[in-house]
Amino acid sequence: MLIDGLQCGFFTREVFQDLLDGGFTCVTPTFGFWEGTLESLDAIGLWRDLVRENSDIALLARSVADIRAAHDSHRLAILPGFQNSNCLEDRIRYVELFAELGVRVMQLTYNNQNELGGSCYEDSDSGLARFGREVVHEMNKAGILVDLSHVGEKTTLDAINHSRKPVAVTHANAASIFPHKRNKGDDILRALKQKGGIIGCAIYRNITPPEACDKVGAWCEMVARTVDIAGIDHVGIGTDISHNNTQGHLDWMRMGRWSRVVNYGAGSAANSGVAPKPQWLTRPADLAKVHAGLKQAGFNSEEVDKITAGNWLRVYGEVFG
Amino acid sequence: MLIDGLQCGFFTREVFQDLLDGGFTCVTPTFGFWEGTLESLDAIGLWRDLVRENSDIALLARSVADIRAAHDSHRLAILPGFQNSNCLEDRIRYVELFAELGVRVMQLTYNNQNELGGSCYEDSDSGLARFGREVVHEMNKAGILVDLSHVGEKTTLDAINHSRKPVAVTHANAASIFPHKRNKGDDILRALKQKGGIIGCAIYRNITPPEACDKVGAWCEMVARTVDIAGIDHVGIGTDISHNNTQGHLDWMRMGRWSRVVNYGAGSAANSGVAPKPQWLTRPADLAKVHAGLKQAGFNSEEVDKITAGNWLRVYGEVFG
Repeated sequence: MLIDGLQCGFFTREVFQDLLDGGFTCVTPTFGFWEGTLESLDAIGLWRDLVRENSDIALLARSVADIRAAHDSHRLAILPGFQNSNCLEDRIRYVELFAELGVRVMQLTYNNQNELGGSCYEDSDSGLARFGREVVHEMNKAGILVDLSHVGEKTTLDAINHSRKPVAVTHANAASIFPHKRNKGDDILRALKQKGGIIGCAIYRNITPPEACDKVGAWCEMVARTVDIAGIDHVGIGTDISHNNTQGHLDWMRMGRWSRVVNYGAGSAANSGVAPKPQWLTRPADLAKVHAGLKQAGFNSEEVDKITAGNWLRVYGEVFG
Repeated sequence: MLIDGLQCGFFTREVFQDLLDGGFTCVTPTFGFWEGTLESLDAIGLWRDLVRENSDIALLARSVADIRAAHDSHRLAILPGFQNSNCLEDRIRYVELFAELGVRVMQLTYNNQNELGGSCYEDSDSGLARFGREVVHEMNKAGILVDLSHVGEKTTLDAINHSRKPVAVTHANAASIFPHKRNKGDDILRALKQKGGIIGCAIYRNITPPEACDKVGAWCEMVARTVDIAGIDHVGIGTDISHNNTQGHLDWMRMGRWSRVVNYGAGSAANSGVAPKPQWLTRPADLAKVHAGLKQAGFNSEEVDKITAGNWLRVYGEVFG
């Protein structure tokens, strides 16, 4: 099994087939970044059609049992997630409704502060705000995994402490290995471990050490250093890879409708375009190299299984109920 | 068992208790009239809270099995319905999503023409429009009962013919017994029978013969005349009674946000306020009188059971799947 905690971009049958052929068992695509309620429902509707039209190779997963069923029937499990909470439009009761419509992962904030808390790119992080505290508990009840990847440091720590269930940083790296606003400090990784949570190590070039983008061995070494901090039961994969991304998609991700000026997200003025793919991961099938790479980094088979799938399955099981 | 195909107004624990004590098994309240997607989701959320807080005496029913379970556990089954399709906001994919959130009955139009078709109060009825044709089939697939009560004559006939499942006029009377724009002609009632559908006979004063509002016997006679037209398997009860209705509620029902001028709905300038309750039905428990009344009107026990519950259960079973 191979589980990827987060991907982006525009999915097609070809992408499903590539992921399936590449050995992926389950992927959380990004159903939305800045979309409000109606657009998020539109996305859910379009994804249902897409998966229905490709039901021979894909299914929408709502549970660990669904992920296993996908694996057993040689299909790709799609685990629906949003990289923001804008779909709630300030309604506490919508958490349960979106959960019932199959949403299983929701990031509290994307790149901007919102009603729930602060983002990693803001100058000042309020911590988990009043609505955020209610939403985290509601997500715990409804069976939605709290994702803290783009969330600010204080809000991330607050959410870990406030949650009654394990939480996730679905796609980021350790800031002590590669300092970046999007990456997480050792204190967060230790709190995540304490809570039974998980970090999905990313391969997105802007937040990953250059050598780990060049060589699978170096990336697996980075994972091993992350395990040193967070523990073998709390590290997984969250590639953050994008399919068919264009500058238009990137502009939407970075500026939505909230800004008239150029924003670079995890990039910079000097590095503003679509990030080049990591050298060792130019197509989905390349990710299978991590099985051998992790062994070379010193993990035994059982540990490799935890990192590539088992830890996600455990967290999913505890959160989805 | 006693099933009421449609009620209106503001529901509270007291209303649930009165209905339960009054012998009601299942009621479809009106979750919305003019509300768009967000407000309709709000209504679903608020109804969930209300029913959860009163789970000792009520449950939200999604199936005939749920209605039977409510009966067996001495609770009131609430079968969610909307008196309009505005919650869809032109999205075909929302039909499935609202079905998944528990909506089981949806009227194609309320008092105004919309994207789906014409209403009984318009001067000219387009018939079932392009979106309406797609929605009816989507409702058939998703397990939502097509309600045609306030729908225009041509659109009603089109929808009956177009639907792949039985449809309902949840709350109206036979126009040949009491002529009114809201009531249905014999051709419609015969088409409804042909399709395996149902009409819920109403007790709303503005569309019911005065004598049938005064005496339960006369109302049961009216039901018997309706059975003469539509057949014993295609007539049920859809009282259209309101709980805690105020002039404010009535203004919303009649004018929504679409009109600046006074509209009277089923009333008139001379009869503009909240309609007085029928004399024989001033509280929910009074409806139990119809069991004896229908027998006096000539029905045997089996036939009375069909009218008071069995016909609804059959249609619900065929539509909800």
